[in-house]
Amino acid sequence: MLLAKSISEVRAFHKKNVGTWGLVPTMGALHQGHLSLVARARAENEHVAVSIFVNPTQFAAGSDFEKYPRPLERDLEMLQPFNVDLVFAPTAAEMYPPNFQTYVNVQDLTQPLEGAMRPGHFRGVATVVTKLFNIVQPDRAYFGQKDAQQVAVIRQMVRDLNLPVEIVVGETKREADGLAMSSRNVYLSSEERRAAAVLYRALCAARDAFHNGERGGEKLRAVMRGVLAQEPRATVEYVSAADPATLQELEHIQDRALFSMAVRFGSTRLIDNLLVVA
Amino acid sequence: MLLAKSISEVRAFHKKNVGTWGLVPTMGALHQGHLSLVARARAENEHVAVSIFVNPTQFAAGSDFEKYPRPLERDLEMLQPFNVDLVFAPTAAEMYPPNFQTYVNVQDLTQPLEGAMRPGHFRGVATVVTKLFNIVQPDRAYFGQKDAQQVAVIRQMVRDLNLPVEIVVGETKREADGLAMSSRNVYLSSEERRAAAVLYRALCAARDAFHNGERGGEKLRAVMRGVLAQEPRATVEYVSAADPATLQELEHIQDRALFSMAVRFGSTRLIDNLLVVA
Repeated sequence: MLLAKSISEVRAFHKKNVGTWGLVPTMGALHQGHLSLVARARAENEHVAVSIFVNPTQFAAGSDFEKYPRPLERDLEMLQPFNVDLVFAPTAAEMYPPNFQTYVNVQDLTQPLEGAMRPGHFRGVATVVTKLFNIVQPDRAYFGQKDAQQVAVIRQMVRDLNLPVEIVVGETKREADGLAMSSRNVYLSSEERRAAAVLYRALCAARDAFHNGERGGEKLRAVMRGVLAQEPRATVEYVSAADPATLQELEHIQDRALFSMAVRFGSTRLIDNLLVVA
Repeated sequence: MLLAKSISEVRAFHKKNVGTWGLVPTMGALHQGHLSLVARARAENEHVAVSIFVNPTQFAAGSDFEKYPRPLERDLEMLQPFNVDLVFAPTAAEMYPPNFQTYVNVQDLTQPLEGAMRPGHFRGVATVVTKLFNIVQPDRAYFGQKDAQQVAVIRQMVRDLNLPVEIVVGETKREADGLAMSSRNVYLSSEERRAAAVLYRALCAARDAFHNGERGGEKLRAVMRGVLAQEPRATVEYVSAADPATLQELEHIQDRALFSMAVRFGSTRLIDNLLVVA
């Protein structure tokens, strides 16, 4: 396993290793969700790259960029069993040299939900993913469904810019109580950690109501809000029952919907989602 | 020579033709400037692609997008002697399908000069060039120095987004009287055509003054304006003596400058430039 810090090392390594490449882009602080993507990339490609980069351009000023966990040694150990060919862990200066001034903007899909709460976030995501694709030049790239809007934005970008990469999406990995695995879960106090299971309970309640015939968007959002309201530590940012393609809120659901939410526990912000199909 | 109208044809052809690729992106209406780039691409690569696409996203509403010349048959004949492997001539619908919403923005370099006169122009250029690079996946791409700011913007974009393409710039080709070759020259009446040689005369006057020791930016811009003022058919949009790297106007020139201008003759807008080095 080559640990590359520079873009030129990646390019040289890629040139020497002909064949299909799978890329798993991460911000490190790896958990089972990431590792399931790495395992799938390993099974589907001749070569596997994992990028570990806490991307400053997707964090707003005053957000958790500085305190975001960066346990690189532990991440490398966790990757050891997967026979990864290349770990790319650049510095911010390597990715954003002086006078950097080019950004990729996906317009409509980045307006609602996370985009509304985190202005500039998806511009940062789209830009760094474009850069990683151009540096590693993978045949396939692996993302988790936990970041549902990110997946939608990247799929749109790949289609619009004709990026020669197949996007593969892995299902959300969950703890025993249903909490979606996230690198930010380590921020939670033990009380908050127990309370955080309420996101998945709220999503499941809406899913059950949907499968019992409820098709009203506002009714289903109210189901989720009702469950979240039972947890006093939860501060709701948004609750959504949206079209999975456009991410626009639905009044009446036809055959499918993306239920999603962002909820704060103290200073920690968690997101989760479920895709339902009739 | 394969004439491909669809992206999937290009991808299939690329897969079958391993080796280095050179791409000459054009809007068609080819002239000797384009052909000199094609000849260079032919000499430097195993395979050569020429794209012919009048890109709607780089034209402002009400500009010459509709009347821009599209002599495809003649273009293909002109390419015949160069043994081009692939001509990619897509429709606008192929390049911009419904719901297209992703754009590449280069920020600082697109503000002055052409960017100031043509809002959105370089967003369209950067986006379509990114798309063409992703579709054709060339090792080298060829552009003319006649569009000096376009070259600067594309170089910046390639650097910032780590596009795996080498940018090669060919010198401006000129008619006998110095007029830079341009697909828009066909718009000129015979009187305007004669008058249009004043751009190159103005640039040469500034170059001569520079080589005679003049280093004042405003003085050199005045030299160019003075020559242009002698031609009553010329309406000046801008005259610039700028830093070739940043495109910012210079008060005092150190060792190099980009002299450039945009001038209208009737409804036809012409640009030209000279790079001077002490």
